[in-house]
Amino acid sequence: MDRRKLPVGIFDSGLGGLTALAELARLMPEEDIVYFGDNARIPYGTKSPGIIKKFALQDTRFLLSLGVKAILVACGTVSSNCLAEVGAESGLPVVGVINAAAKKAAKIAGANGTVAVLGTAATVRSGAYERELKRLGCENVVSRACPMFVPLAESWHPTADDAAANAVAEEYLGGVAKAAPAAVILGCTHYPLLSGVIQKHLPGSELISSGSESAGEMRALLLERGLAGAGGGKIRFYTSDDPELFRENAARFLGRDIAGPVMKADIETY
Amino acid sequence: MDRRKLPVGIFDSGLGGLTALAELARLMPEEDIVYFGDNARIPYGTKSPGIIKKFALQDTRFLLSLGVKAILVACGTVSSNCLAEVGAESGLPVVGVINAAAKKAAKIAGANGTVAVLGTAATVRSGAYERELKRLGCENVVSRACPMFVPLAESWHPTADDAAANAVAEEYLGGVAKAAPAAVILGCTHYPLLSGVIQKHLPGSELISSGSESAGEMRALLLERGLAGAGGGKIRFYTSDDPELFRENAARFLGRDIAGPVMKADIETY
Repeated sequence: MDRRKLPVGIFDSGLGGLTALAELARLMPEEDIVYFGDNARIPYGTKSPGIIKKFALQDTRFLLSLGVKAILVACGTVSSNCLAEVGAESGLPVVGVINAAAKKAAKIAGANGTVAVLGTAATVRSGAYERELKRLGCENVVSRACPMFVPLAESWHPTADDAAANAVAEEYLGGVAKAAPAAVILGCTHYPLLSGVIQKHLPGSELISSGSESAGEMRALLLERGLAGAGGGKIRFYTSDDPELFRENAARFLGRDIAGPVMKADIETY
Repeated sequence: MDRRKLPVGIFDSGLGGLTALAELARLMPEEDIVYFGDNARIPYGTKSPGIIKKFALQDTRFLLSLGVKAILVACGTVSSNCLAEVGAESGLPVVGVINAAAKKAAKIAGANGTVAVLGTAATVRSGAYERELKRLGCENVVSRACPMFVPLAESWHPTADDAAANAVAEEYLGGVAKAAPAAVILGCTHYPLLSGVIQKHLPGSELISSGSESAGEMRALLLERGLAGAGGGKIRFYTSDDPELFRENAARFLGRDIAGPVMKADIETY
């Protein structure tokens, strides 16, 4: 079997990981990709570490059942809480969203600049970004949990001028703005949907999409391991909730129709 | 076996159903009660009817496994989407949150007054409250889906003066206020946590807690069927997420510690 021809697997709690998928498909148009969104159980980031790990391992086993060659964990909560467990369960090369985003942020901020990390409650509690940023020599880090950003992004779809979204953003980002961060890591892959609102509250900061950055890391890994393939660029989607609902919401999320079939996955059986 | 001594089962997607539990325990202090909160998969109200039904039947089978004599569905989304299926699956007397709240609202509004229904997207889409209110002779009904209210109630815990909560409430309730409803049904059992904010935006309206009202209906049903018991008033809690987290958040939700043990339920296996 030529492993290069196998698909890359991507999973997320919902639609946020589509930012990683879009970037990977752009960087490596010849790769086959399978995407799984756990829309039936979203959000992950407000739940306990035990449940996050349980869901992540089910997601991993589901992708394994589809014969993937590598896994991109396009969920900030899973990446920061149990990436090693996904690696151990799968025995495959695994990339999360932390490392590449932290690397880019550290480069922008330099030794004296400040990096802000926005993420779910579980991501911030894990301290994963701070550890990686400190390892890269970046000492000035402010972190802020923004639990309302996922429902805002998935069900509200606010414009940059939306009054309620700006009030929520002011509550979360008022303190962050005082630290004048050079770089702001959107540590949950849903947050790019709110980048207009976020940028208004942090006008001098460069926003970094952790999902998009992770695609570059996956590309480097596939090339390094001799796994980069020529599958033909077929993309398939699976969701634990309604496939038609996924297709509709994904189109709204990406701003264009998704190219590929959407199928139902009975995730609780994995 | 004396069925009167069996516990009453209550389930909800999370903590909201505790409003029903508190009222039932007050009305019937001698009843044993088992409560299940599906905190691992909350929210239900943003998801598809198929997933809501699947989760509701798992919740039902879990309560059946504990030997309950009747079920109070303290979740507005399940009550409005698949209450009949819970009845059929369980073969037990079942009470939802719709009927008693609609009855009280219709009485307040009279034939000419307006009733407003606030609920999750799935509850409003179902039309269940409108049908029941029309059956009761109430023709003037305005409904509004408020999907951000559950995350606001469960993770934000806003005061009545909270700027972001008021901006979200203004978005949802600005139009509702124009209809000057006599009664407002809080059709999701989480919403009483936001009653301060909601009342500010609907100052002339009487707020009705669907969870609290449903407890009176359960009491009437138990008395009518000869099932009212003398179990000693023991209350037990189960959650699909972390029991300690449940205890903490439930105390915050109720404003006092919960009296009774909290145990983990592996809900996906039911």
